[in-house]
Amino acid sequence: MTQNRVRMGLIGTGRIGLVHATSISAHPETELSWIADPFVDGAHALAARFGGRVTDSSDELLDSGEVDAILVAAPTPTHVPLIEAAVDRGIPVLCEKPIDLDIARVEALRPKVAASGVPVALGFNRRFDPAFAEVRARVAAGEIGPLEQLTIISRDPAAPPAAYIGVSGGIFRDMTIHDFDMARFFLPDIVEVSATGSTLFDEGAREHGDFDTAVVTLKSASGAIVTIVNSRHSAVGYDQRIEAFGALGSLQANNPSLSLVSASNATAVDARAPYEPQFLHRYAVSYSAELDAFLRLMRGEPSDSPTFDDGRAALLLADAAQRSAETGSVVAMPFN
Amino acid sequence: MTQNRVRMGLIGTGRIGLVHATSISAHPETELSWIADPFVDGAHALAARFGGRVTDSSDELLDSGEVDAILVAAPTPTHVPLIEAAVDRGIPVLCEKPIDLDIARVEALRPKVAASGVPVALGFNRRFDPAFAEVRARVAAGEIGPLEQLTIISRDPAAPPAAYIGVSGGIFRDMTIHDFDMARFFLPDIVEVSATGSTLFDEGAREHGDFDTAVVTLKSASGAIVTIVNSRHSAVGYDQRIEAFGALGSLQANNPSLSLVSASNATAVDARAPYEPQFLHRYAVSYSAELDAFLRLMRGEPSDSPTFDDGRAALLLADAAQRSAETGSVVAMPFN
Amino acid sequence: MTQNRVRMGLIGTGRIGLVHATSISAHPETELSWIADPFVDGAHALAARFGGRVTDSSDELLDSGEVDAILVAAPTPTHVPLIEAAVDRGIPVLCEKPIDLDIARVEALRPKVAASGVPVALGFNRRFDPAFAEVRARVAAGEIGPLEQLTIISRDPAAPPAAYIGVSGGIFRDMTIHDFDMARFFLPDIVEVSATGSTLFDEGAREHGDFDTAVVTLKSASGAIVTIVNSRHSAVGYDQRIEAFGALGSLQANNPSLSLVSASNATAVDARAPYEPQFLHRYAVSYSAELDAFLRLMRGEPSDSPTFDDGRAALLLADAAQRSAETGSVVAMPFN
Amino acid sequence: MTQNRVRMGLIGTGRIGLVHATSISAHPETELSWIADPFVDGAHALAARFGGRVTDSSDELLDSGEVDAILVAAPTPTHVPLIEAAVDRGIPVLCEKPIDLDIARVEALRPKVAASGVPVALGFNRRFDPAFAEVRARVAAGEIGPLEQLTIISRDPAAPPAAYIGVSGGIFRDMTIHDFDMARFFLPDIVEVSATGSTLFDEGAREHGDFDTAVVTLKSASGAIVTIVNSRHSAVGYDQRIEAFGALGSLQANNPSLSLVSASNATAVDARAPYEPQFLHRYAVSYSAELDAFLRLMRGEPSDSPTFDDGRAALLLADAAQRSAETGSVVAMPFN
Repeated sequence: MTQNRVRMGLIGTGRIGLVHATSISAHPETELSWIADPFVDGAHALAARFGGRVTDSSDELLDSGEVDAILVAAPTPTHVPLIEAAVDRGIPVLCEKPIDLDIARVEALRPKVAASGVPVALGFNRRFDPAFAEVRARVAAGEIGPLEQLTIISRDPAAPPAAYIGVSGGIFRDMTIHDFDMARFFLPDIVEVSATGSTLFDEGAREHGDFDTAVVTLKSASGAIVTIVNSRHSAVGYDQRIEAFGALGSLQANNPSLSLVSASNATAVDARAPYEPQFLHRYAVSYSAELDAFLRLMRGEPSDSPTFDDGRAALLLADAAQRSAETGSVVAMPFN
Repeated sequence: MTQNRVRMGLIGTGRIGLVHATSISAHPETELSWIADPFVDGAHALAARFGGRVTDSSDELLDSGEVDAILVAAPTPTHVPLIEAAVDRGIPVLCEKPIDLDIARVEALRPKVAASGVPVALGFNRRFDPAFAEVRARVAAGEIGPLEQLTIISRDPAAPPAAYIGVSGGIFRDMTIHDFDMARFFLPDIVEVSATGSTLFDEGAREHGDFDTAVVTLKSASGAIVTIVNSRHSAVGYDQRIEAFGALGSLQANNPSLSLVSASNATAVDARAPYEPQFLHRYAVSYSAELDAFLRLMRGEPSDSPTFDDGRAALLLADAAQRSAETGSVVAMPFN
Repeated sequence: MTQNRVRMGLIGTGRIGLVHATSISAHPETELSWIADPFVDGAHALAARFGGRVTDSSDELLDSGEVDAILVAAPTPTHVPLIEAAVDRGIPVLCEKPIDLDIARVEALRPKVAASGVPVALGFNRRFDPAFAEVRARVAAGEIGPLEQLTIISRDPAAPPAAYIGVSGGIFRDMTIHDFDMARFFLPDIVEVSATGSTLFDEGAREHGDFDTAVVTLKSASGAIVTIVNSRHSAVGYDQRIEAFGALGSLQANNPSLSLVSASNATAVDARAPYEPQFLHRYAVSYSAELDAFLRLMRGEPSDSPTFDDGRAALLLADAAQRSAETGSVVAMPFN
Repeated sequence: MTQNRVRMGLIGTGRIGLVHATSISAHPETELSWIADPFVDGAHALAARFGGRVTDSSDELLDSGEVDAILVAAPTPTHVPLIEAAVDRGIPVLCEKPIDLDIARVEALRPKVAASGVPVALGFNRRFDPAFAEVRARVAAGEIGPLEQLTIISRDPAAPPAAYIGVSGGIFRDMTIHDFDMARFFLPDIVEVSATGSTLFDEGAREHGDFDTAVVTLKSASGAIVTIVNSRHSAVGYDQRIEAFGALGSLQANNPSLSLVSASNATAVDARAPYEPQFLHRYAVSYSAELDAFLRLMRGEPSDSPTFDDGRAALLLADAAQRSAETGSVVAMPFN
């Protein structure tokens, strides 16, 4: 059976690399054939668990002739050269977001990707979360009428280390970028961006001139308005809800509690457990579904995989939000 | 406008008397014309607030020629003689439950009430609770198909004083009697009663050989099964829920929280406020609706007012439950 | 007892006038002594129900010497002259919002009100909604830590008639003004306003160049960010929720369902009834509490009554939102 | 690593056999070494997917010398001889419930099992459901005070085929037996059983003189009362809730919805998706945890594995319930 599986090359073996190795290993149509990481011990650890050959060089992996597609889970600055190298060799890519923090590098790569015809997908895994995908499908089916308002509450359990903040590109490019893609999942044509940010609690954000709290408003070509409410911390765990609103009603994706048990006593009733504090658990299912969609994209089948251009669009929105928060002006989006 | 109002005579001015005085005063079609209580200070206090003439003699009230109906909120042992006296005078009665703790006295009075044609209603106010009434109406409309199971959770916030327990007739005649009437509100023809009781926490119950915890199972002529779960205490406040279940689904009457606010933090999410600890507040609306139904009964209009025979049926069920709990045998109900 | 009650003069007998007449009549410390409306039939109708003398002239009411305070429920353009006339006579005023649609008239009146020392309260009744007030009190008590984000969802059941839209001053001055006051109830010092609007479904809004859909972002001096999401329609009825968020968790004021019954079947479980479609019912309790707070203000006691300056601040925010939506720029708020 | 794994022999390859094969295969400490089924095609199908040697003879499996433990997922009549054969060979057994439908055969086997010291566990997997286990652990930790009432709602999505009903032993031995074990999970010492049944909708139940609707009341030695509400059908899918109630409050294990999405419109708000219709999905996690507990039992470590005696106790309760429903009398339980 093995020889018919898609041979995946994994580049990068950190926290998110482990997630993808697990998905690849569990998927009936894929196998983990090569693993590359300059920190070769990480690659060996994954190989011991999931199989696959190991190298400290992504070039060796790409030139092995034994990978049908690559999954890029390496640090952001490597994304552009790795996508380029893969496209040059005709190897499809599923790349973690973002493409890059610098839109200029994205624009420079874009014509080559477009001309190559090689499938390049971006890892906006939340599109594949069952609840978010269900809301979108039901909106598309007309259950609430035309979408008028989309409200996205998106709060992470805790801020990342200060050192990470320093190289993250800022909250809009690092964290909100998921919400920008979610907004475009419902409303691809965003024409205006307006953003406000504050630094209220996180020392790392303060140190690096970043925000830890932000609200972004997007207007789509249809006039529908998207509101994104972000915070870098959340006592209840991952707080990521969506409310889609139209003339006929609303659909809401709620947070999963860690338990089905509720408690009632003299001071509170129906109290549930908090939410998942780890995104790998919160979004475990979505990573599998993301891989599945990528396989469909590779086969030329209909797929919800976000593409290179979706990755570019999310970054353009992040840049616009940053500019809006700095200048106090709405930024018009001339997508093309 | 006053001369067209129904002139109500109130007998008894304790806690429940105050509730009824308030309802009578607030209702656009009734006025409080006479108030009787041997403890005449209580009567004066109500009169100062709601108007009405005062007496320490229920006979004076009944013979005043100035009451169109009476509302009996006096102690249980007075119910039978007061109903009899009113019926003799052709005066309609709305009497607090139960008719009596002794079924023999109820049976003795029954022929006279039936022969008189005078409206006699029993104060099973929960029939008029909007949520319970809505569940019944939707069941009657066929929303869940034929009723198969009715589950009644009924817990009071705290046990009454030991002295009250001693004269209460026991948990089945004092507390469960409301639930028996609720069961019959949905399924009038109960054919079997089975009950279990325990004494787990209340000193008063222990002292008087009563239960503080009980479960009763009823079978209706249709085969539908009713389950009643009782406790004399409840940390969350009044806990009185109903679940009606049938082939097509279920309808549930939930408890009202004291507030619309929910709280989420690191240990619990969506925690609501506890429930109403006072039955007068919990059922305030139902007492008004009960009076309304009684006025319709007086006018010969369709009414959900529980009648003397409903009061008798509830007491028969309470007696049967007591016997079942004592003997460990199911008790068949030969209603006629 | 009557001579000790506060004698209220009601000016205006429309829909909201009826609400206030009901509150005044029900309150143990107030009585409705005079009612004025140029449409004198409306005044007579209220007097028949609640008592009070009737006039078609607000001057006659003000000069009667028989009113201890007035409640202004007349059309917006009359608010400024009526407040001025009352203040000139030393008569306290509880005036429906807004003070006026034109900030210039408000500023012109402001010094006289301030100098007079006469209590002038604005009818931002939502401050007195028990759920919103509870959230604020618990935030103030530190339950969630310093307030970082306040998210206000505020949707009306249906858009008003086109003719009303034409004289309403636009969505921000007419509808969002309640939310601006709610924002200031939590965070009085707003320093930045940013707004976006769309016209998606309402013909009246389109006709008059107004929005039917809007999102407003406010920043407070503390850096906390308020998000207001508005729509002129809502299939579920009044949808007015607040979420206060801080480091320790969040507090949420939820919508009241019209019933406690939930239904479960093969296609949906735990379905509740929709929300109240009429604001008079939705906010009935808040109107009584508002009157109560006004009486405390009159007596010089601590009170949450929104003042003339609160009314001015809300209008300044509405003007700023209108300007921001038109220009695409954040508007700084130089309150003083 | 493989040689250190526990070599499991699976007997029976039907629907539940597949569940266990999946659990064994996924567990890091077990491997599926032998599969036996007289219907040998079923065994081959599982072997193709999960590995293992195949036989049509359970004796061959038991005598292979290559199984460290067996998992019995064969039809109920084989349970007693298979347990006996395994115990004779010193091979630990995890056997699906029930041990047998005939208590006499269970009693006959009991001394041998007890004398052997060989671990024999029964497949009451619901003990390992995370929500039920959490409720029990929190009750044990004293969160609600001593347990006073345990209410178990347990409804299956649909009745089994009539042919199955005919050999099932009746609703109490086939379906309620899970609830009896759940009751004993919280309150091991049940002293009284009272049961009521009806046949309301299922043709198969009617044909075989069985009930499709039942309520059972159990009293524990402590006086705590357990109520079990059963139905053979449920439009919403698996409806299996537990409420544990004590002086300090209650803990409730709720049903999992198939989706996190809720919908609101003009007729219903907050409507969720129905529940899982397949027990294999509903209890998937519990089957893995059950295997885990069995491994601990084998190693002599503390374990919540229900034992042979737990299986016997559940059957005794089922027999008692059957007798109570037939005779209308409470049945005393002289466990020993």
